[in-house]
Amino acid sequence: MITLASDFGTPYPAAMKGVILSRCDARLVDVGHDFPRQDVRTAAFWLRETLPEFPPAVHLVVVDPGVGTDRAALVARAGDHALVGPDNGVLLPAARELAGDDGVETYELEIGDPRSSTFHGRDVFAPGAAAVHDVGVDRLSELDDVAPIENVVDLTFPDPDVREDGATGEVLVVDGFGNVVTNVPGDVLADRDAVAANGDRVPVVRSYAHADAGVRVVTIGSHGNVEFAVNRGRGDEAFGLSTGDRVELEW
Amino acid sequence: MITLASDFGTPYPAAMKGVILSRCDARLVDVGHDFPRQDVRTAAFWLRETLPEFPPAVHLVVVDPGVGTDRAALVARAGDHALVGPDNGVLLPAARELAGDDGVETYELEIGDPRSSTFHGRDVFAPGAAAVHDVGVDRLSELDDVAPIENVVDLTFPDPDVREDGATGEVLVVDGFGNVVTNVPGDVLADRDAVAANGDRVPVVRSYAHADAGVRVVTIGSHGNVEFAVNRGRGDEAFGLSTGDRVELEW
Amino acid sequence: MITLASDFGTPYPAAMKGVILSRCDARLVDVGHDFPRQDVRTAAFWLRETLPEFPPAVHLVVVDPGVGTDRAALVARAGDHALVGPDNGVLLPAARELAGDDGVETYELEIGDPRSSTFHGRDVFAPGAAAVHDVGVDRLSELDDVAPIENVVDLTFPDPDVREDGATGEVLVVDGFGNVVTNVPGDVLADRDAVAANGDRVPVVRSYAHADAGVRVVTIGSHGNVEFAVNRGRGDEAFGLSTGDRVELEW
Repeated sequence: MITLASDFGTPYPAAMKGVILSRCDARLVDVGHDFPRQDVRTAAFWLRETLPEFPPAVHLVVVDPGVGTDRAALVARAGDHALVGPDNGVLLPAARELAGDDGVETYELEIGDPRSSTFHGRDVFAPGAAAVHDVGVDRLSELDDVAPIENVVDLTFPDPDVREDGATGEVLVVDGFGNVVTNVPGDVLADRDAVAANGDRVPVVRSYAHADAGVRVVTIGSHGNVEFAVNRGRGDEAFGLSTGDRVELEW
Repeated sequence: MITLASDFGTPYPAAMKGVILSRCDARLVDVGHDFPRQDVRTAAFWLRETLPEFPPAVHLVVVDPGVGTDRAALVARAGDHALVGPDNGVLLPAARELAGDDGVETYELEIGDPRSSTFHGRDVFAPGAAAVHDVGVDRLSELDDVAPIENVVDLTFPDPDVREDGATGEVLVVDGFGNVVTNVPGDVLADRDAVAANGDRVPVVRSYAHADAGVRVVTIGSHGNVEFAVNRGRGDEAFGLSTGDRVELEW
Repeated sequence: MITLASDFGTPYPAAMKGVILSRCDARLVDVGHDFPRQDVRTAAFWLRETLPEFPPAVHLVVVDPGVGTDRAALVARAGDHALVGPDNGVLLPAARELAGDDGVETYELEIGDPRSSTFHGRDVFAPGAAAVHDVGVDRLSELDDVAPIENVVDLTFPDPDVREDGATGEVLVVDGFGNVVTNVPGDVLADRDAVAANGDRVPVVRSYAHADAGVRVVTIGSHGNVEFAVNRGRGDEAFGLSTGDRVELEW
């Protein structure tokens, strides 16, 4: 199985699929191709949340603003999974989550003389993913085109500051519903009926529809973190928040 | 085969796919994941039109504004098909269409202690769909996690009023091209060259391109109902119509 | 394998998939369903660029503003590939690319009395694609529903005018990143550091990120042609260009 994620929209992902299917008969599963364009951090977050749901697979990830520069192409082995994509940090949070105690092994993927300098998804990463799939994740180090690499670009998400009387955190992403996903762990909301969220007192609810339509709330999102939300509305607009903004909770 | 439909956008559907593929090797087919958010009625309409094209399958449907409340999770058996989704009516129009004379059997799906209260697509419905697929639609009542349920939330579309000299109906949905789909049966247009549509006389055409670009028309849509449309334009804008609006035809 | 491309958005492609899967068990791969609506030329360009990446397949293409008129339904055989879609030129550029020296053979697909006049994707082309897949591309002429046809609607892209001191061309498409794809062959940029692009001197770069963010550049796109672009920005907006516009390069 090969999963595919990118910020390509249409039709570049199909070119990658054609390349892969010309080389192997893997099952292909789209993770999504409308991640915010060239936003490595947002893609890294969603991949960390999503890829661990999959059975062992090769995960092709192309959010690659540095295409055609000297940034390396990577294969990251993470337990029974492998991730293939650019060396800009986008693979690492998901790889660590998938690897657990095994740790992540990183390899440089060296495809000589790719057809283009502007579409390595098609010309480097798709052939790389097909090659890893064909040889098998546990034998990927035997591939001629890969070599161990130590210093890769990392990407981490900031830790929140959780105190006795509140927490300070950051907006990691906003989802398509407008729910504002923070880095504050959801368990700070346990047994609370209400908190001050960026200064305004709002109810703590089990899920969106436990409040009336239009009411601002905080809840625990599917990733386990505190979300700022509005039942049947957009939390980002109601709270005036976007990715990277600071959030304050007080109780 | 498991089909998937939701209002999730990206990347939540991929989490559902990962969960399913961790549990079974069903072929997955996307019906669509950009149904209007939290609009149960529109999704119910399109599923009724679309799912009957499929061979026997399990259909996972998650348009679920009540996630995390006490609304039940359902499995609806409809002939050789099964539908899995929330008890808010979204499954019923398609289920009735698929079941025909067999009638629809409804079961409550009881997944104890789901991981989240905000993403039952991943934590309840995807595991449920995989379980139904694995046991087989004709044996789904043998699953430990399902129990017959009688009183479920229904959803029906209004009947039009068809008279000697005209018809009064309602806009059911507007499609992506802007074509306005009504509940008035298309056969009222048979052998007519023109009708008054909400007061203005417009031609009756076999398909959009039988009128000049920009001309307002009525035609019979692919679902068999009267559509208000514009060749190479948007019928919803030209007629000033949206979902739920009343339409009047006179001849 | 059957690939699917259309301007349908959601959920009409799913109806086509249901029809196909009711008739054969082909692997289905989406090329894309959000091609610009009713824009035959743009779809034809992207299909020419994308379909040659695929192994032998049947390619279902439905961008069909003339649905329900007397335009023919076509099957184009191109080497080991077949394309199925309306006779409006959308298939031809890709078919020629796939056929190479073999040349393209065209057949009319005659499905008697389709269910609708407004959705031939479901009622004509999907059954046609399934039938071609089932009989096999090399035996498609044996199908009862196809007959050779000679005069089909063609579609070609304009040739650029390349001179000693510059080139005059045209914008073929703008991609989702805002990159402006022209018909000028990329090799005119070889060994140049800068050119005048529509009057303004801009650097020639190997790929977008070789310029600072926001800087206008020209580069060679993945299709081999000159692109007008902006690193981390939209080339179409920065250069004020859209499909069909004239471009001038001077060196």
